[in-house]
Amino acid sequence: MGHYVYAYADAADVRRELLGGKGAGLAQMTALDIPVPAGFVVTTEACVEYMRTGGTLPDGVEEEIDEHMARLEAETGKRFGDPGDPLLVSVRSGAAVSMPGMMDTILNLGLNSETAAALGTATGNPRFAADAYRRLVQMYGEVVEGIDGQRFEQEIARLKGDRGVRNDVELDAGDLVELAGRFESIYVDATGRPFPQDPRDQLLRAIRAVFDSWDTPRAQVYRRANGIPDDLGTAANVVQMVFGNKGTTSGTGVAFTRDSSTGEPRLFGEFLVNAQGEDVVSGARTPQPIERMAELLPGAFAELVETLQRLERHFREMQDIEFTVEEGKLYLLQTRTGKRTARAALRIAVDMAGEGLISREEAVARIDPGQLDQLLHPMIDPGAKIEVIAEGLNASPGAATGLVVFDADTAEERGRAGEDVLLVRWETTPDDIHGLIWARGVLTAHGGMTSHAAVVARGMGKPAVTGCDALSLEPGQATIAGRVFREGDSLTIDGSTGRVIRGDVPLVPPEMDENFETVLAWADGLRHLRVRANADTPEDATKARELGAEGIGLCRTEHMFMAGERLPLVRQMIMAGSEDERRRALDRLLPFQQADFEGIFEAMAGLPVTIRLLDPPLHEFLPPLDEAETPEMAQRIRSLREANPMLGTRGCRLGLLYPEIYEMQVRAIVRAGLAVAARSGSAPLVEIMHPLVGFAEELRRLRELTLDTAAAELEQAGGELDYRVGTMIELPRACVRADEIAESADFLSFGTNDLTQTTLGFSRDDAEGKFLTRYLDDRVLDTNPFETLDTAGVGDLMRIGVERARATKPDVKLGICGEHGGDPRSVAFCHQLGLDYVSCSPYRIPLARLAAAQAALAERGVVAVAVGG
Amino acid sequence: MGHYVYAYADAADVRRELLGGKGAGLAQMTALDIPVPAGFVVTTEACVEYMRTGGTLPDGVEEEIDEHMARLEAETGKRFGDPGDPLLVSVRSGAAVSMPGMMDTILNLGLNSETAAALGTATGNPRFAADAYRRLVQMYGEVVEGIDGQRFEQEIARLKGDRGVRNDVELDAGDLVELAGRFESIYVDATGRPFPQDPRDQLLRAIRAVFDSWDTPRAQVYRRANGIPDDLGTAANVVQMVFGNKGTTSGTGVAFTRDSSTGEPRLFGEFLVNAQGEDVVSGARTPQPIERMAELLPGAFAELVETLQRLERHFREMQDIEFTVEEGKLYLLQTRTGKRTARAALRIAVDMAGEGLISREEAVARIDPGQLDQLLHPMIDPGAKIEVIAEGLNASPGAATGLVVFDADTAEERGRAGEDVLLVRWETTPDDIHGLIWARGVLTAHGGMTSHAAVVARGMGKPAVTGCDALSLEPGQATIAGRVFREGDSLTIDGSTGRVIRGDVPLVPPEMDENFETVLAWADGLRHLRVRANADTPEDATKARELGAEGIGLCRTEHMFMAGERLPLVRQMIMAGSEDERRRALDRLLPFQQADFEGIFEAMAGLPVTIRLLDPPLHEFLPPLDEAETPEMAQRIRSLREANPMLGTRGCRLGLLYPEIYEMQVRAIVRAGLAVAARSGSAPLVEIMHPLVGFAEELRRLRELTLDTAAAELEQAGGELDYRVGTMIELPRACVRADEIAESADFLSFGTNDLTQTTLGFSRDDAEGKFLTRYLDDRVLDTNPFETLDTAGVGDLMRIGVERARATKPDVKLGICGEHGGDPRSVAFCHQLGLDYVSCSPYRIPLARLAAAQAALAERGVVAVAVGG
Repeated sequence: MGHYVYAYADAADVRRELLGGKGAGLAQMTALDIPVPAGFVVTTEACVEYMRTGGTLPDGVEEEIDEHMARLEAETGKRFGDPGDPLLVSVRSGAAVSMPGMMDTILNLGLNSETAAALGTATGNPRFAADAYRRLVQMYGEVVEGIDGQRFEQEIARLKGDRGVRNDVELDAGDLVELAGRFESIYVDATGRPFPQDPRDQLLRAIRAVFDSWDTPRAQVYRRANGIPDDLGTAANVVQMVFGNKGTTSGTGVAFTRDSSTGEPRLFGEFLVNAQGEDVVSGARTPQPIERMAELLPGAFAELVETLQRLERHFREMQDIEFTVEEGKLYLLQTRTGKRTARAALRIAVDMAGEGLISREEAVARIDPGQLDQLLHPMIDPGAKIEVIAEGLNASPGAATGLVVFDADTAEERGRAGEDVLLVRWETTPDDIHGLIWARGVLTAHGGMTSHAAVVARGMGKPAVTGCDALSLEPGQATIAGRVFREGDSLTIDGSTGRVIRGDVPLVPPEMDENFETVLAWADGLRHLRVRANADTPEDATKARELGAEGIGLCRTEHMFMAGERLPLVRQMIMAGSEDERRRALDRLLPFQQADFEGIFEAMAGLPVTIRLLDPPLHEFLPPLDEAETPEMAQRIRSLREANPMLGTRGCRLGLLYPEIYEMQVRAIVRAGLAVAARSGSAPLVEIMHPLVGFAEELRRLRELTLDTAAAELEQAGGELDYRVGTMIELPRACVRADEIAESADFLSFGTNDLTQTTLGFSRDDAEGKFLTRYLDDRVLDTNPFETLDTAGVGDLMRIGVERARATKPDVKLGICGEHGGDPRSVAFCHQLGLDYVSCSPYRIPLARLAAAQAALAERGVVAVAVGG
Repeated sequence: MGHYVYAYADAADVRRELLGGKGAGLAQMTALDIPVPAGFVVTTEACVEYMRTGGTLPDGVEEEIDEHMARLEAETGKRFGDPGDPLLVSVRSGAAVSMPGMMDTILNLGLNSETAAALGTATGNPRFAADAYRRLVQMYGEVVEGIDGQRFEQEIARLKGDRGVRNDVELDAGDLVELAGRFESIYVDATGRPFPQDPRDQLLRAIRAVFDSWDTPRAQVYRRANGIPDDLGTAANVVQMVFGNKGTTSGTGVAFTRDSSTGEPRLFGEFLVNAQGEDVVSGARTPQPIERMAELLPGAFAELVETLQRLERHFREMQDIEFTVEEGKLYLLQTRTGKRTARAALRIAVDMAGEGLISREEAVARIDPGQLDQLLHPMIDPGAKIEVIAEGLNASPGAATGLVVFDADTAEERGRAGEDVLLVRWETTPDDIHGLIWARGVLTAHGGMTSHAAVVARGMGKPAVTGCDALSLEPGQATIAGRVFREGDSLTIDGSTGRVIRGDVPLVPPEMDENFETVLAWADGLRHLRVRANADTPEDATKARELGAEGIGLCRTEHMFMAGERLPLVRQMIMAGSEDERRRALDRLLPFQQADFEGIFEAMAGLPVTIRLLDPPLHEFLPPLDEAETPEMAQRIRSLREANPMLGTRGCRLGLLYPEIYEMQVRAIVRAGLAVAARSGSAPLVEIMHPLVGFAEELRRLRELTLDTAAAELEQAGGELDYRVGTMIELPRACVRADEIAESADFLSFGTNDLTQTTLGFSRDDAEGKFLTRYLDDRVLDTNPFETLDTAGVGDLMRIGVERARATKPDVKLGICGEHGGDPRSVAFCHQLGLDYVSCSPYRIPLARLAAAQAALAERGVVAVAVGG
């Protein structure tokens, strides 16, 4: 046995990474004595070598292939290229990870004009033989030589015209011989060479074509979208042909062991009598439900049912198989883990655990956390016909359909009147909040993933598409990619993908069924990480708690500052000419803040609530310069303007420059805590968090300010309140000096949004839709570091931060509250780092709970079975 | 002997840190048998404890003081508080580091109304005794109780009025007894308590006052300005009083062992007959040159001369001493290292090395690198009377005086006509370059340390003050802090301090004398770090080479893009609608770049030249939106606008998005290299540097682009050129992933300006003059991290970067090219890190050479003697 090629019969114990999914499945089935055609696999390692050398098969591979062909000939009793009754094979790609977009299959290799005629004689079916040969020329021409498939299809149409028939099946053997000849001419015309008549030549070139297909743009795009490494390579399977198109005792089909849509435990699939696999896939003929096979091919059906049960028991996972029946005899051509909807995935996992097929741990490990979004937000009906007219950033997940409105007042007015409206704006500002509340979703031309519209919509769990370049607005109308929309016209957005869709579209409502609750309850029993919510309002907090939040990890106070009635007070505070005047404005703001905090504390009774003090630069609360209400305001706007506001006067710098602001916030927190304690009998667990600390001295001073202010309030009220003081770690300096910073902190929370911006030098607003998009398209980067934590860079700084913080304060509580807290891979990394909790937006909580459990399971070696190819 | 108090006689071997400078000097002199008054010192440790506990002297200190007072009484044969002939003492502060701004001295402690009278009898000089007492009440009142000194001075004036006399000396003993009484009343009035009559009480409260004075605002400001830690504390010296005001055989004075202004080796100082030290310092009487003492007090003078020689030999350093002669007997009251000008410092170091007093290493170690600026730029004449009318940022060092002009054209016109002009603008843009060239200096209302004006001026070695808030401009005139200036009015700026000064002011020209060259030559022989220049033009390169640069560490290509005739081409390139159009514009730019590079290569023949490819965001090359030349340009300006340009599409991101730009630059570099090689016979040592790399993949691709482009050029030209490819390390991610990045790099250069911005999350433009200034004022930070490297944060990331880069590529060349490369403390840190070179602006090169030598010496234990207090 060689190094690069394995017969299925010998390969049951060979690593899946080498065989690819398809090859591994065939090897497993061979070992289980399930009827599969004989064959062998050229490994992914050969493909990797082939790519590395720029297209040279490794030494010895051709010889190994020859040896395995000889063995196949011996097993089947047929000879490859035999002009009497030739051995025919298919070549199929099969990577270790399922990957559409690559070349799939070439059937009937081994035929040439001579053996095709012999096959006709040998099978007594010259039409079948001629059809097989013309299919080979077509597939080979398209796949290996890249000839446009239309040329072949047109030729079929022309021949049918010549013959005066309408369907392919009406063409007889002679017609198909004629057709094969015309296909050979197309081949010569396109390539300048005759169709290769040497079967060995066909085979080797087909294998190369499989390897080449690993690097097609389609395949690359798919890999990037799914986070699959580029250097895995694909295997090439060489399998004896079996034919489902040998008459009415033959057929072909696909089947799932369970319903891939609902998860119901029943056989599910389709089949066609007298057909080859491509006929099922191409949609040229309409297949029948698999149940009909019981009547038409009862013996094969019974064997299929029994085989599928064995496969599912063997793989302990729902299987998706392809099969062919050749003259009554069943062959399985492929088995792999079946894809399924989120709903089905949950049901199958719960059912299989109930059946004792898998453990609860495995059930939890098998759910793709990313899929849960399907269950939490309305989605576009997968069956709906839609017309995508533009794309923007997928700023907040879920789909929304509604009547277009262009201003917040109209949104509120029509929304109150019971209409579904979509707010369409250049961008939104704090002044638009009431419009966002009443709209089903929001679409903006400007703004990135952290724009006002995006942040507010995510907080509300409302769909949003932002940064839609194709959108422009004139008074009373919007133009999207050339189409004009007036107020009241229908439009749909899909905030999960960024798509903008013409008209209204049927949506599938969110559904969190019993299986969802069951799996998450199991997950909760397995995870070590706590899961908290980023929530700024009592409504968000309530929703988060419903979804399983164990506290609030980030309550931003600036959104409270922006709400309608407070904004004028905030502006007074900013415009104040003296500290005294500023304090007076702050005193008037205090009751509002206190009321906000009371609502949140009540919603989270008994759980910790981390409140971040004011973070954004003050100019964010002022209108644009050209809307300044007074010359003084214009002057103040100009003086607050910053070249790089992200790195400017914000975060704890505000607290040190204007201590009275943080003092007011601390007072409001303490008063709210006391009020809630008095009403409910139990005090909230309050954590006061200072943002953007880079130097231990900053936190030392702010901790003192916090303790002093709280002590004064408590003394005045004669009450007691247990609270903690901590900081965000969102600057590289804070990571390397976490040892010193921890000295003044009860807890540290990694703010990975800002930490990513500073560590990478990427302004999120400037990167997304611009150079970052190009980086992802050009594969400079594999993943968007604002979605999935850059573990090698940002993550390494976090690791340093964790080590150093625990070095001076072993029991300091550590968490993360960037948006990465809701990304499964990032959650897994946080588990590995040994953080205490992750915090994410409310609608990501179930996902984080599941991902946290999976991370804990992965540590114990329990991982999801990779989905086969 | 106790823990907190040491007699001078026992303290010769006690650490200077404990005794303070003054105490250590007295202890040393005691050991050398030089005549000093007896006394003891309460250590800095007692002060630190005192501050830590909020004002409590450590246990046992009072008892120790009592013991030492008893010993002093035994030695002097007098008793503290003796109503017959009392022992009197002074209390003087003395930190380990010389520190003006703290309380200095209280004399005559031990007197009260009773002992004053007794002293008059005992000395036979009642006037002297009464005067001593009134001085005590005044000094004690001012220093310990904080009474306004004016109240005492007014009372003296009133008494002189009452007596009808003009000078203090005309007041007789009775008058002074009367005066002491009035002073006691002032004391009661101000404090509500009588003046303490108990000498022990006086003494203890005076010691506490010395300790308290460590934390006065003045002292804090001084420490911040000079980088002195806050937790050192001061010692308190208790010394027997000696009196220089006991008649014509008494006197007092100060002396230097060498001329502190020129360094000339001669006795230098002043003295007064029949006076106490404060009379010299206060300027109430005009002292005489020290030489006159030879005639007036020949014995004491001879002893003084001999003593000073011994002291200089003992301390091996120029000494600054205070002395008193009491009735013919010389006492030294203090000795410390003498302060001196830069010119004097160099001469003294060279002379002492010549005299064999110190080694050349020590000579090098003793020069303060920061002082060298005095010799490299014109300075305001230290003797000139100036009126500072405003302050801005000290953006580029040196002083300039000239006629105000408001636009670049006028600056050029009048400059060409031979006038000295100062360009005064809101801010400067690339369009103003010709004005900057012809102006003596530039003053702007806007812009920070990295504004256009600041960067260009530093490059040119021209003084600049930027961000001067007090400046506003109207057509044809400027208003600075309320004063109006019209074109042609005189104005002076001091770019070393940020001061703006009314009118013209005499300047001292730069002078680099023989001693300067000598010390730097010695330094060159001692340092390990190479020193390179940041230089963008042949002129800068030539200047840098004159000042000792060993190559260019950073040649920025964007300033070439901004020069007059190129800017239109650059704008064409940016406005290009297609890659082709862009390439055509770039082709036209190429010859300009090539010519620039040729000039620089020639100026640096034989030395390495590191060229950084284009770094700034493209919008920097376009005019402001309201000056857009076409609607298309306005559109492009809008589309290139960024929320945080510092973190946007710049650096190598440009090279990856528009490879044709970097290709053009590489071609221009290669062609210039070949051209210079052909002309001069030797090829330049070219290093091509890619900016803002964060991911290894970025550099891998850009290295490939560089090698491919250069290879194509070289093949076409049939030439050969040795060049290196490297990157800047200016993002935190680049530090932690330096291992991967080094794989594609021949050299790495830390860009500490940007690395500081990203590590700290400080936008330099937004921090300086705003929150950073407040942070420094409020002592959240001790030093400006843009001037002196934040070694604990940024430096720690650099250390990680160095370790990791060398882990994968031990021989990778490492340097620094941020402005920290010209800061002495930062240079020392770079030496400790083991970098290969530092690079700084041309006028900082001598400083860096010296600092690098000192860092190497420090490693061998050779450090400058701390300047005593």
